[in-house]
Amino acid sequence: MEKNSTTTRFSKLQRRFTELRNNRLFEFVVIAVILLSALVIGARTYDLQPRWQLFLKFMDIGITVFFLAEISVRMAAEKRITQFFKKGWNVFDFLIVTASLIPIEESQTVLVARLLRVFRVLRLVSIIPELRILLNALIKAIPRMGYVAVLMFIIFYIYGAVGSLFFEHINPDLWGNIAISMLTLFRVVTFEDWTDIMYETMDAYPMSWMFYLSFIFFTAFVFLNMMIGIVLDVLQTEHEQSNREHGEGEAGEVHWIKEHTVTMETRLARMEKMLEELCKRA
Amino acid sequence: MEKNSTTTRFSKLQRRFTELRNNRLFEFVVIAVILLSALVIGARTYDLQPRWQLFLKFMDIGITVFFLAEISVRMAAEKRITQFFKKGWNVFDFLIVTASLIPIEESQTVLVARLLRVFRVLRLVSIIPELRILLNALIKAIPRMGYVAVLMFIIFYIYGAVGSLFFEHINPDLWGNIAISMLTLFRVVTFEDWTDIMYETMDAYPMSWMFYLSFIFFTAFVFLNMMIGIVLDVLQTEHEQSNREHGEGEAGEVHWIKEHTVTMETRLARMEKMLEELCKRA
Amino acid sequence: MEKNSTTTRFSKLQRRFTELRNNRLFEFVVIAVILLSALVIGARTYDLQPRWQLFLKFMDIGITVFFLAEISVRMAAEKRITQFFKKGWNVFDFLIVTASLIPIEESQTVLVARLLRVFRVLRLVSIIPELRILLNALIKAIPRMGYVAVLMFIIFYIYGAVGSLFFEHINPDLWGNIAISMLTLFRVVTFEDWTDIMYETMDAYPMSWMFYLSFIFFTAFVFLNMMIGIVLDVLQTEHEQSNREHGEGEAGEVHWIKEHTVTMETRLARMEKMLEELCKRA
Amino acid sequence: MEKNSTTTRFSKLQRRFTELRNNRLFEFVVIAVILLSALVIGARTYDLQPRWQLFLKFMDIGITVFFLAEISVRMAAEKRITQFFKKGWNVFDFLIVTASLIPIEESQTVLVARLLRVFRVLRLVSIIPELRILLNALIKAIPRMGYVAVLMFIIFYIYGAVGSLFFEHINPDLWGNIAISMLTLFRVVTFEDWTDIMYETMDAYPMSWMFYLSFIFFTAFVFLNMMIGIVLDVLQTEHEQSNREHGEGEAGEVHWIKEHTVTMETRLARMEKMLEELCKRA
Repeated sequence: MEKNSTTTRFSKLQRRFTELRNNRLFEFVVIAVILLSALVIGARTYDLQPRWQLFLKFMDIGITVFFLAEISVRMAAEKRITQFFKKGWNVFDFLIVTASLIPIEESQTVLVARLLRVFRVLRLVSIIPELRILLNALIKAIPRMGYVAVLMFIIFYIYGAVGSLFFEHINPDLWGNIAISMLTLFRVVTFEDWTDIMYETMDAYPMSWMFYLSFIFFTAFVFLNMMIGIVLDVLQTEHEQSNREHGEGEAGEVHWIKEHTVTMETRLARMEKMLEELCKRA
Repeated sequence: MEKNSTTTRFSKLQRRFTELRNNRLFEFVVIAVILLSALVIGARTYDLQPRWQLFLKFMDIGITVFFLAEISVRMAAEKRITQFFKKGWNVFDFLIVTASLIPIEESQTVLVARLLRVFRVLRLVSIIPELRILLNALIKAIPRMGYVAVLMFIIFYIYGAVGSLFFEHINPDLWGNIAISMLTLFRVVTFEDWTDIMYETMDAYPMSWMFYLSFIFFTAFVFLNMMIGIVLDVLQTEHEQSNREHGEGEAGEVHWIKEHTVTMETRLARMEKMLEELCKRA
Repeated sequence: MEKNSTTTRFSKLQRRFTELRNNRLFEFVVIAVILLSALVIGARTYDLQPRWQLFLKFMDIGITVFFLAEISVRMAAEKRITQFFKKGWNVFDFLIVTASLIPIEESQTVLVARLLRVFRVLRLVSIIPELRILLNALIKAIPRMGYVAVLMFIIFYIYGAVGSLFFEHINPDLWGNIAISMLTLFRVVTFEDWTDIMYETMDAYPMSWMFYLSFIFFTAFVFLNMMIGIVLDVLQTEHEQSNREHGEGEAGEVHWIKEHTVTMETRLARMEKMLEELCKRA
Repeated sequence: MEKNSTTTRFSKLQRRFTELRNNRLFEFVVIAVILLSALVIGARTYDLQPRWQLFLKFMDIGITVFFLAEISVRMAAEKRITQFFKKGWNVFDFLIVTASLIPIEESQTVLVARLLRVFRVLRLVSIIPELRILLNALIKAIPRMGYVAVLMFIIFYIYGAVGSLFFEHINPDLWGNIAISMLTLFRVVTFEDWTDIMYETMDAYPMSWMFYLSFIFFTAFVFLNMMIGIVLDVLQTEHEQSNREHGEGEAGEVHWIKEHTVTMETRLARMEKMLEELCKRA
């Protein structure tokens, strides 16, 4: 009997946790605490009086404790722990919350501890449904950008190797090796003081403007086509969706007419047969 | 009898005001005065002789009086004052016109008085119907940009906090606190001398280029998807509209055919029954 | 008889001119001369030996004479001179060719004379049909950009007036009057060293970053919506066109079916009447 | 008999080569070697110890030999050599592989030899099918950009000539001749320190801002319309494709209904005739 009552008490507790988790007020409190933690993170970047710094430290501990309690509630609300970890967003939350618990003592790694707290702001994305939908949509857009990114990287790699080959002796800070060259080329793509770079190499190689202009044209061309590719992709998705919805509209009616034309034809065939028989008899 | 004649005289006057308001010439005069007020505002920014400054001052008073008269006519043209304030554009006009009437005396606030006069140019938007339609369309576009703006702000906030955490000791003018950091990051997004900022931090943290490049990619990626989202939105709106128009076109004809197929089928059923009876009798 | 033979000879000559104008070879020669004139214009910008300069001068005279002859042929090929000037492109060609004939003697206006010759390159657009089509399409796109341009100008004007009002004493070179301010704002829109301008004003007004950021957001927002507006416009044009083409496709077939359903129904009505009569008799 | 056995042995060998070429493992090895060659190219741009430089030299020879062997296998796998060269991508591979075999001895041309090796990275495009598809799509996009590029060049040429004409004496480094002017104008289009150029010429010609602003508007306008043109092009392609696919969908059903309406009508006509005869007899 004891065991049973324990189970009952446990399931009662669990039901309460589930109720708490689904409570709208609870959700608003969590969002408020996340925003508070964001403010604490922001406030820390200002030069504050020791008194305020101490206050922020206590706030920080309080927020950490709250987050731990909140994630415990959400874990307890599930019937099995594994159920909790099946949802990607839960794993995301769990990692962000527990990461700030790792004890760090050395002076340099204080930065890392504060860095981990910064990522708590990301919990806003996992808790607000509209942002979660938006981010899921963004993640879906990644594959269609994949091979174009590979092509872009090949262009950067070839131009980086060529640039490093020809311009290294002119300015090793910009063209020292292929990695530095590729960073310089990214700078050229953003048009950031790119003519300074070009004029420098044009002193040694007067035709080197062709290197820069062809690079800009290639990357712009590939980027433009990527844009169009994505628009096309979006259009096709939209078209299919509209077709499916249309199924109940015009296309559905046409299909209905087709099927009824079949039944009308068989009926007419029967009627013609009867008429022929009548003609014979008459 | 007296009261009646007053009412009649009043309604007569009101009808005249309504006629005046709807007069095309009146509209053109108002537009001309708004353009004139814009010219006065522009002229004031030049260093002028005292004579001309006095002239502009009188012009200014004249324009203020004209605007007051014009808005009074439009208020009098409505049967009830509340009717006038129900239209958003009227409230907009009223605020702009009356704002410049607030008496300001101190030297510093002369700027504020002149600032309020600048906004009179916005009356061009409220008076030209095509611009009003355009602005309404722009206002409708705001919500669909909302959550993306929130996501963008989260990215800026996190990168701002990280930047302030790591780079504050390198250049406090750029990374002093989270607000300054976010402004610096906006500068990076506009590619304005962003490599100077990067090279500075790369001396202390050689891998900090990853901070900048990842930031540029994230913001560009989110921006690109926002663009596509809006295009998709516009397409769906256009699709629905075309469907509604289509109702009278192909889809309408298909629906007509469907209904008539039903009546043909019932008639054929009746005819088949008659034929069967004839066959039995014969 | 004499008069007649003159008319005959004249119409014979005119037919020859028309043949010449429509000759493909003639067209290619004209294109070649335009390209040659472009090369002469380009060559003139180099520092050349007196011998070559003299050569270019003779080339120039030759090209002018050729263009005059060509436009005369095309004018003579028309039956009436007014017919020639009815086509916009002909007027365009005529102005470009005759403009370089105006005698100019003073030293300063040599520049104007050379400037007029530069525009001869534009004749490439009027003579190559594909470019003419492209330019016609570009001209058609102007109206749909009109009111957006007005809105953009209002934003620039207001921000220009405000900027001139507040920042004139900080840097008169950038904010001296409304015209200079608007040029500075255009510079801000192109992100060209805009942070230098902002940092300068932020010393006096620490909140002035709001002026720049709001300006950038407004102009970017209006520009983005203009882009979408144009895409929408293009889509509607495309939709209508596809509908018209479709008329012979699916929509055409649906219409055919509708009409034939009507004739089938009247026939069925007749048949039912006959059957009813047969039933009565039987 | 001897000849026959040679032929058999040869065709046996060829079958083996074909098998090898179509082997998935073989393909992966080739991709791995291309990536290795890319790494060798990249490593060469770093300052390395002589020992490592020697190692890279041997790697280079190894990779060259491997590529020669691979292309030989693929040539042997074809029944006729001409068959091999009919595919564009094969010619592309052959040129890249054989180009690095040309013996070069002089010191200066060592650069050229290394340059040719850089292009081996492009073999990634020819060997990975997805990239090949992507590049084919990019190549298809070139013609629709052709005439717009010509128009863009005309704008650059005219503005370049005008700029060189008026501004040469101000700054020969930027406006010395038409070629330098066009490069300067490209710089203006990328907004790279364009205001410095403008402010310089505005000292001599205060109205020269009109030159820059009109140039920016023209090029931006043409570019914007090119973008829209391409989107329209893509939409039409998508529309046609969807129509073809639709043929089996709604449009197909409509066509089916039309044909069956014809047969129903002929049957009804026959039936009406019979009924009329019955009526007469009865």
